[in-house]
Amino acid sequence: MPIPAETPETGARTGVWFIGARGSVATTAVAGCAAVAAGLRPATAMVTETPHFADRGLPPLSSLVFGGHDTVAWPLPKRAEELAAQGVLPHGLPNAVREELAAADAEIRIGGPIPVDSRDDQELIADFAADLVDFTRRNGLARTVVINVASTEPLPAEDAHRLPASSLYAAAALRARCPYANFTPSTGLHHPALFPLTDSACVPYTGRDGKTGQTLLRSVLAPMFHERALTVRAWSGSNLLGGGDGAALADAGAAAAKNAGKERVLVDTLGTRPEGQVHIDEVPALGDWKTAWDHIAFDGFLGTRMVLQTIWQGCDSALAAPLVLDLARLLARADESGLTGPIPELGFFFKDPDGGSCALAEQYAALLCFANRLGQSW
Amino acid sequence: MPIPAETPETGARTGVWFIGARGSVATTAVAGCAAVAAGLRPATAMVTETPHFADRGLPPLSSLVFGGHDTVAWPLPKRAEELAAQGVLPHGLPNAVREELAAADAEIRIGGPIPVDSRDDQELIADFAADLVDFTRRNGLARTVVINVASTEPLPAEDAHRLPASSLYAAAALRARCPYANFTPSTGLHHPALFPLTDSACVPYTGRDGKTGQTLLRSVLAPMFHERALTVRAWSGSNLLGGGDGAALADAGAAAAKNAGKERVLVDTLGTRPEGQVHIDEVPALGDWKTAWDHIAFDGFLGTRMVLQTIWQGCDSALAAPLVLDLARLLARADESGLTGPIPELGFFFKDPDGGSCALAEQYAALLCFANRLGQSW
Amino acid sequence: MPIPAETPETGARTGVWFIGARGSVATTAVAGCAAVAAGLRPATAMVTETPHFADRGLPPLSSLVFGGHDTVAWPLPKRAEELAAQGVLPHGLPNAVREELAAADAEIRIGGPIPVDSRDDQELIADFAADLVDFTRRNGLARTVVINVASTEPLPAEDAHRLPASSLYAAAALRARCPYANFTPSTGLHHPALFPLTDSACVPYTGRDGKTGQTLLRSVLAPMFHERALTVRAWSGSNLLGGGDGAALADAGAAAAKNAGKERVLVDTLGTRPEGQVHIDEVPALGDWKTAWDHIAFDGFLGTRMVLQTIWQGCDSALAAPLVLDLARLLARADESGLTGPIPELGFFFKDPDGGSCALAEQYAALLCFANRLGQSW
Amino acid sequence: MPIPAETPETGARTGVWFIGARGSVATTAVAGCAAVAAGLRPATAMVTETPHFADRGLPPLSSLVFGGHDTVAWPLPKRAEELAAQGVLPHGLPNAVREELAAADAEIRIGGPIPVDSRDDQELIADFAADLVDFTRRNGLARTVVINVASTEPLPAEDAHRLPASSLYAAAALRARCPYANFTPSTGLHHPALFPLTDSACVPYTGRDGKTGQTLLRSVLAPMFHERALTVRAWSGSNLLGGGDGAALADAGAAAAKNAGKERVLVDTLGTRPEGQVHIDEVPALGDWKTAWDHIAFDGFLGTRMVLQTIWQGCDSALAAPLVLDLARLLARADESGLTGPIPELGFFFKDPDGGSCALAEQYAALLCFANRLGQSW
Repeated sequence: MPIPAETPETGARTGVWFIGARGSVATTAVAGCAAVAAGLRPATAMVTETPHFADRGLPPLSSLVFGGHDTVAWPLPKRAEELAAQGVLPHGLPNAVREELAAADAEIRIGGPIPVDSRDDQELIADFAADLVDFTRRNGLARTVVINVASTEPLPAEDAHRLPASSLYAAAALRARCPYANFTPSTGLHHPALFPLTDSACVPYTGRDGKTGQTLLRSVLAPMFHERALTVRAWSGSNLLGGGDGAALADAGAAAAKNAGKERVLVDTLGTRPEGQVHIDEVPALGDWKTAWDHIAFDGFLGTRMVLQTIWQGCDSALAAPLVLDLARLLARADESGLTGPIPELGFFFKDPDGGSCALAEQYAALLCFANRLGQSW
Repeated sequence: MPIPAETPETGARTGVWFIGARGSVATTAVAGCAAVAAGLRPATAMVTETPHFADRGLPPLSSLVFGGHDTVAWPLPKRAEELAAQGVLPHGLPNAVREELAAADAEIRIGGPIPVDSRDDQELIADFAADLVDFTRRNGLARTVVINVASTEPLPAEDAHRLPASSLYAAAALRARCPYANFTPSTGLHHPALFPLTDSACVPYTGRDGKTGQTLLRSVLAPMFHERALTVRAWSGSNLLGGGDGAALADAGAAAAKNAGKERVLVDTLGTRPEGQVHIDEVPALGDWKTAWDHIAFDGFLGTRMVLQTIWQGCDSALAAPLVLDLARLLARADESGLTGPIPELGFFFKDPDGGSCALAEQYAALLCFANRLGQSW
Repeated sequence: MPIPAETPETGARTGVWFIGARGSVATTAVAGCAAVAAGLRPATAMVTETPHFADRGLPPLSSLVFGGHDTVAWPLPKRAEELAAQGVLPHGLPNAVREELAAADAEIRIGGPIPVDSRDDQELIADFAADLVDFTRRNGLARTVVINVASTEPLPAEDAHRLPASSLYAAAALRARCPYANFTPSTGLHHPALFPLTDSACVPYTGRDGKTGQTLLRSVLAPMFHERALTVRAWSGSNLLGGGDGAALADAGAAAAKNAGKERVLVDTLGTRPEGQVHIDEVPALGDWKTAWDHIAFDGFLGTRMVLQTIWQGCDSALAAPLVLDLARLLARADESGLTGPIPELGFFFKDPDGGSCALAEQYAALLCFANRLGQSW
Repeated sequence: MPIPAETPETGARTGVWFIGARGSVATTAVAGCAAVAAGLRPATAMVTETPHFADRGLPPLSSLVFGGHDTVAWPLPKRAEELAAQGVLPHGLPNAVREELAAADAEIRIGGPIPVDSRDDQELIADFAADLVDFTRRNGLARTVVINVASTEPLPAEDAHRLPASSLYAAAALRARCPYANFTPSTGLHHPALFPLTDSACVPYTGRDGKTGQTLLRSVLAPMFHERALTVRAWSGSNLLGGGDGAALADAGAAAAKNAGKERVLVDTLGTRPEGQVHIDEVPALGDWKTAWDHIAFDGFLGTRMVLQTIWQGCDSALAAPLVLDLARLLARADESGLTGPIPELGFFFKDPDGGSCALAEQYAALLCFANRLGQSW
């Protein structure tokens, strides 16, 4: 149960609960947090470790305690070894942080619904919430932030009478008074059945769909075209994804969910929807790497046709994990500060923010303001 | 002599004087201004024609009167035909605006120093200034803005005892009380011998080196890396330029001048200078088009190596001309408003601004503030 | 009716009959043939105008007479003007060859089946064949080569009881004793119902699906990987097409037809089918231009992962038209030489050749041998 | 001393002597040979392990014995660990082949000239040749093939009165009757002072400058443009090299040596030298990886301008090492077969072959013929 913000919390620890706790993003976040906290690695790619976020009251990395839900069983230290073999984690790192991985592994609970699960939605939510409360109590945590980093779900059918799993977990988070962030394009809190819950939430929440690659680029390029009054005629994109997300998104429905986020930044910024499609292909040979090619046909002065192309080659887990840690820290502090409901100032992290601009520069400015407010006494 | 800003100027016309008046940028600006003013073409790529700049008191496009200096003799209408054959200007356009091209052509004066020119620097400055005053008077203009769009000069030698041509023209502009912008990387007002002149300038001036392609991209990408705390290890670039600028920049000294501007945005934004070089090649086969490839090697979380590549294929004149018209209008209004000296708020247009941020988004915000101020009564 | 090959044909003219005669490929071929024949333009991109094909008895460009079928009505000279406005044809060219365009225009007949066409397949074939015979006779031609350059058809349904249009035209060609080439991925002669006709053909025919861009590249790159024993793990491709073909191929069935050809070169050359998909998007903003991005993930020594990416930006009609003229000339000469049935030696031109290697170098060697044979007395 | 080719050599072992034996190419070759011979890794990228080369009498990988010259001292097993940390060698591999690395390490001799070396050229050659003879005798080898894989030398000055180091080693190889290949752009045997030696050589030799990346691509792309009669207007390239070769080639002279090889394939294949330059930059952040961007502007039918761009991202050592092993085996067998002098049939491996076509497909065909001849009894 969160301690009121007025109470001093010196020394209190903060829980971070991953939905999809055995996936590559969660594994990278746990291993990386330990490595950076121990000074084994610099804090590259962690926005909350830059000077702007010092003295804002964010929980230190060393105070984070990890747990989570997953439906698979492989041990986290083994998963980390696999990631090191693929070059996602530095060699030697899994061994160096073996203890922290094992500690997180011990706090992972079976999620659901699992095959032949007889529990109905309310029972699942109750079970998940109980896991969260138990984790927080047993570890004596000030609070626990829940972050969804599971594989993308297909879009739910129109007439689905069950909640999608992402929504069950999200509901459990609010039920257990845990701040919540949805780093995936899955439904999460964006389900009409959960609106009563979100409307009365006494914790902060945010999302949806982490902005880590192609859309990150689009959120700086689209404003550039707009500010220079260049007319974007067509914006086409192709994504090659290796890992689990590639498989999940190969499903057309899941791709549609993801593409909606990718297009939002264009429509919001440019004011129109340019021609062009986005493809997401699964290419297992790429391992945890992803490649995104964008082709932007635009008109210059007097209609002269020009083209910009971008090729982004990144490692999905290494892009997502630090942002997930950033979100956990910011939400924990926001909760401590008594903030509730959606936090549009965290739009910097998302393809589909809770409001505000879709332009990265404006989102960053809003984030800095927010951090400043967090640093003040409330 | 410019009319004092206090005088009402309803209906007054504004002069735009190009150094390099027969080049492709100037030709495109003259032809394009006429085409847009006449409604033949939309105002794509003209920042000052977007809603933010309405009601700011900028001189309308139809009120601009063109002239300039050049050292070559080919007629502007013919030059426009050549540009249309290359696809820089739309076919039929040179014919549709033949009158306006001929009018500008009639206002072009021989520049200098020309071969076997016996005039010394002071005589050249005096002659150029006289041309400016004569142009303004004969045409009954409220004022004349001077913009350097000539081919890039080589870096002047350390012990040069003569001013480079770009500085002669710049000095003439200030001498004739003309607002001045340097759209090229040439020295212009940045010469120590001109500091007394700039210190006491009673007109606004700005520059240097228009930001039209690779550096424009860099001014949104570098902030993205910075804001996401991604460590840029190496930023390499290759530019293939077809037209006159390619030839001018093939000269190593000129390339050095240009590259200095390209690097500034990186150093300013990232706080360090990443590895990597920039090459500028002349490739006549590309005509007026240019292609810029950038390869950015960066580290993500835990040092994971990633790469972004960009390929920009644009038409140099079509990128530069609308910005040149924007600058002419903004400087004219700034002069009318009584502003003098450097205008850092115009950094949005330059690789090497007069101060302020090098990040495009911040430069755009500053420009909008500036436009707002211009719209107020002074 | 073709004259027997033994007869001397000095001065005889050769017909070229396009299915899709008002499309951009046919228009470009007619205009370009006239321009090259008149010496207005060099013979760039025409393989049969290189020294290897001199003295092979090919009909000269000036002896070609054009006609064709189409179902739309816009005049060829107007179509050429449109192509010039898009930069596909050089400006001024449509005017310079207006007579030749008008002559071809006068020889275009309504194709079919048209909406509410009451003719059955046999009647349509008979009508088309009659058009061919009439064209050949009226113009006193030695023979007429039929080439399909119409928009790609969707794959015919399994239970279709009617022949696809491309097969009707192909049957008509054989019926009228006209050599035939299918430059599109449409069915053409590859329909089981036409096998009796092809088995007994007394003219040469060839196809299918002209190799003009991405597949052309693949037919040199795949052999490179194979010869160097590099293991291709994944070969992904994305195509952005502007013109009519983009629209036609946006239809999923049509894309499937095209992709089959694209994959054949990989499977044939590499011996396995690598991971990866090919996408074909319609992007009208690109006009007649197309852009193809290929991403090839391959393993080097000891499994080291490497990547090759290619970006091809070409003008579809300008790529196809010269090959279509090459084929017309080669088939005319093959027919004159008494060759009948499929001509695998023309595989150089096709994604889906009639046999032989899919590697471009081997196809070129075979083509040169074939040209050599054509040059000998039969 | 090599055994005469007539003598049966069943079971005899073959020496492979690397100039630059502690470099990354040599280290990768030694480690990789052991790994493939032991069945730990597939023979990816080894041309001589493909079926075409079975039964050609090539020495088996397990029969190769490694040694070499170098001027640095770090141990080979340690170098291999570094390469594994960079991802050039698979993790675990250096440990798995530790014995073979140590064995090669023990056979590495100090090269020269070293700083303050008092030996003159003839003394150095004699010393190097003695090392070769000693290595061959002590190990009871049938013969020893010498391969230069050292860092590229700068172009020798016009008036240099000393031989460049690469030429000293090359002379020593011939002196010791060792077959020789120069995998670098350094001078090697191409020095006028060595012509008497090469003219009377009683062993086979070949070179120069291994074709591993950008030029490999060019050797299939240039023929494609030529065969399709497409006019290449400009071919520009930019290379970013991380490792030792990057540093060596940053020296302008060394780059000039390398670029000469890169251009030869274009001039030879296209018949003209297109516009455009090649840049080679050192970018240490790339480690052992290299990236090559090529931009090819070409004309299609009627002069329509089109562009192909390629981006090659490879690991230099992993590209070079298998080819070096291929060359060692082929030269050993050629020597056994009694061949002497230059071997143009090995042009497949080189930017600057000893003659013959520069087109990869033709070079491959020649190589297969050569292998066939090697397989016959002599």
